Amino acid sequence: MTFDATEHPHRRLNPLTNEWVLVSPHRAKRPWQGQTEKQPVLATASYDESCYLCAGNTRINGEQNPNYSHTFIFNNDFAALQSELPVHHSDDPLFTMQSEQGESRVICFSPDHSKALAQLSVEQIHKVVQTWQAQYAELGEIYHWVQVFENKGAMMGCSNPHPHGQVWAQQSLPTLVEKKQQAQIQYFTERGGNLLANYVAREIQEQTRIVAINDDWLVVVPFWAAWPFETLLLPRFSVQRMTQLTESQGLSLAAILSELTIKYDNLFECAFAYSMGWHGAPFDGEAHPEWTLHASFFPPLLRSASVRKFMVGYEMLAEPQRDLTPEQAAERLRTQPLTHYSEK
Amino acid sequence: MTFDATEHPHRRLNPLTNEWVLVSPHRAKRPWQGQTEKQPVLATASYDESCYLCAGNTRINGEQNPNYSHTFIFNNDFAALQSELPVHHSDDPLFTMQSEQGESRVICFSPDHSKALAQLSVEQIHKVVQTWQAQYAELGEIYHWVQVFENKGAMMGCSNPHPHGQVWAQQSLPTLVEKKQQAQIQYFTERGGNLLANYVAREIQEQTRIVAINDDWLVVVPFWAAWPFETLLLPRFSVQRMTQLTESQGLSLAAILSELTIKYDNLFECAFAYSMGWHGAPFDGEAHPEWTLHASFFPPLLRSASVRKFMVGYEMLAEPQRDLTPEQAAERLRTQPLTHYSEK
Ligand SMILES: O=P(O)(O)O[C@H]1O[C@H](CO)[C@@H](O)[C@H](O)[C@H]1O
Ligand SMILES: O=P(O)(O)O[C@H]1O[C@H](CO)[C@@H](O)[C@H](O)[C@H]1O
Repeated sequence: MTFDATEHPHRRLNPLTNEWVLVSPHRAKRPWQGQTEKQPVLATASYDESCYLCAGNTRINGEQNPNYSHTFIFNNDFAALQSELPVHHSDDPLFTMQSEQGESRVICFSPDHSKALAQLSVEQIHKVVQTWQAQYAELGEIYHWVQVFENKGAMMGCSNPHPHGQVWAQQSLPTLVEKKQQAQIQYFTERGGNLLANYVAREIQEQTRIVAINDDWLVVVPFWAAWPFETLLLPRFSVQRMTQLTESQGLSLAAILSELTIKYDNLFECAFAYSMGWHGAPFDGEAHPEWTLHASFFPPLLRSASVRKFMVGYEMLAEPQRDLTPEQAAERLRTQPLTHYSEK
Repeated sequence: MTFDATEHPHRRLNPLTNEWVLVSPHRAKRPWQGQTEKQPVLATASYDESCYLCAGNTRINGEQNPNYSHTFIFNNDFAALQSELPVHHSDDPLFTMQSEQGESRVICFSPDHSKALAQLSVEQIHKVVQTWQAQYAELGEIYHWVQVFENKGAMMGCSNPHPHGQVWAQQSLPTLVEKKQQAQIQYFTERGGNLLANYVAREIQEQTRIVAINDDWLVVVPFWAAWPFETLLLPRFSVQRMTQLTESQGLSLAAILSELTIKYDNLFECAFAYSMGWHGAPFDGEAHPEWTLHASFFPPLLRSASVRKFMVGYEMLAEPQRDLTPEQAAERLRTQPLTHYSEK
């Protein structure tokens, strides 16, 4: 009997975090008798008078949204971080804590209530990219860490279908970022190369995990993906932070974001839910040649528009476990048509 | 302005993993307009003819369950781990993988379809504890790591309300266990004491995070809890593995498990969902004086029987974030009555 990665349980290492994932590919065959989700459907109305993100509408705190035409940013009305607070820390080894200063903002992607990234034109997505860049530039002046992310779909805790993301800025490096920084520094020091740049070259050679590619960008289901259809969006050029992207790199980024989100929607012909976000070098005045800017997409669906993966008992206590190989997931995504299913 | 942990955003460190959690207590006030869950209701029928875990019923693979009277164990029909497979490993730094040998079993807690831990008597829970002990003893002879866990409730990916848990055994130490082992070794080496034993002493002094306590065991919402009502169950005596528990320590464990699960159900008067599991020293022939056996409960509910916490964008990309302090959560759990709400 020889080892077959599509049949035999194995573990793969995420070199960015030094954490493992258990892959149990034969498990994809098991019937699902558990909870099913409400099928995520595309929003149809361009304007919803009860939506607190639509242009011209009034938010919960009484403020009125402007009649914006591309993107619109405002401070989260229930921000998880505050810009002014008393400084405090305790270094007791069993009770370590510190006050954390920061800001949380909401970024509307479009005034059109029904247009998620997969429905926006490349030019409109480029406006979103430019808004992210501007947020990084502005908040990176004040805070060490700026986290741009999007929770899409009710399944991912998103409370409003109006296309929007968030940006949280803070002084400390969050746990996951700190891990990625250490791993990239170690690789750079020990091997004299950039971890993710080397990874990009290898994935382009191997081909098997590619979901989308253009002159500037590559999307793969990473070798160490935890979520069934998790993807990693990587640059094919050297770049540490989103603020460094040129106009044309921003445009090609918009193009690959369009392709990826259309393929996601087409996979199960639904408004595909995910959380996504960006990681790059922190804003600490250093060059950070070990870092490569990248985005991750973490979508929960596993088998259909209504059956998700649960990261529960074993996953919470041991390590993530997946039921199909990253190569199988990549192939299914790669082969999706480039036209959105709603336009068929 | 002085720092107030119930008002101001702050981070707390989990000394078992060296990972942080962002605490944003003021955020508990935000209205929830997102997805609500189906209220988890108690099962009422003692026997369900369509249940593949009830005594005497036939499972998907054609095997018939015995007429068991306390607990019943069988090999998972769709096991994530296999006991026989070819050995394989690749040490390429960007594509590290290894085959993983192991076993997955299901443990039914009771023949009664309607009796979760909160509905079982202390004597019946003691049978579950003894079953866990026997599984650790048996599988610990063969594998380095034995993971006992329970996914309870549809919200936690559990596909059958019949009270049951699982045990997965494998040769490698899973990621989270490896982290906890390193942290406990480091504390032991640097400070000459046992991390969790010292923590137990401090929590008993401080009182504010205690949920339940008896002569042998302590339940706290840990200082670094990520999930809203997460708890940590700790021994008040020195013990590394579940196989070492005496009869009376097993019985007092059953008593505190009963108290904890009743308090959980009473909090929102529902069949409270959670994932729980045990961590202790690995079965590698070493004494591991740095380890303390403990269980963690990770329940998803936040505000009511139908509003859960979503660990999504920021949490997946940065670090867990919580909306009430561990002290607030502990007080709410501690003050729950000891009689199950269904018996009122
Ligand atoms: O109990 P099951 O059906 O085997 O599966 C459940 O628990 C497993 C272990 O935590 C998870 O990997 C699955 O996603 C979950 O649905
Ligand atoms: O978008 P919201 O409503 O602020 O909140 C959502 O995203 C946050 C950041 O990932 C999470 O902490 C919340 O649990 C989730 O519901």
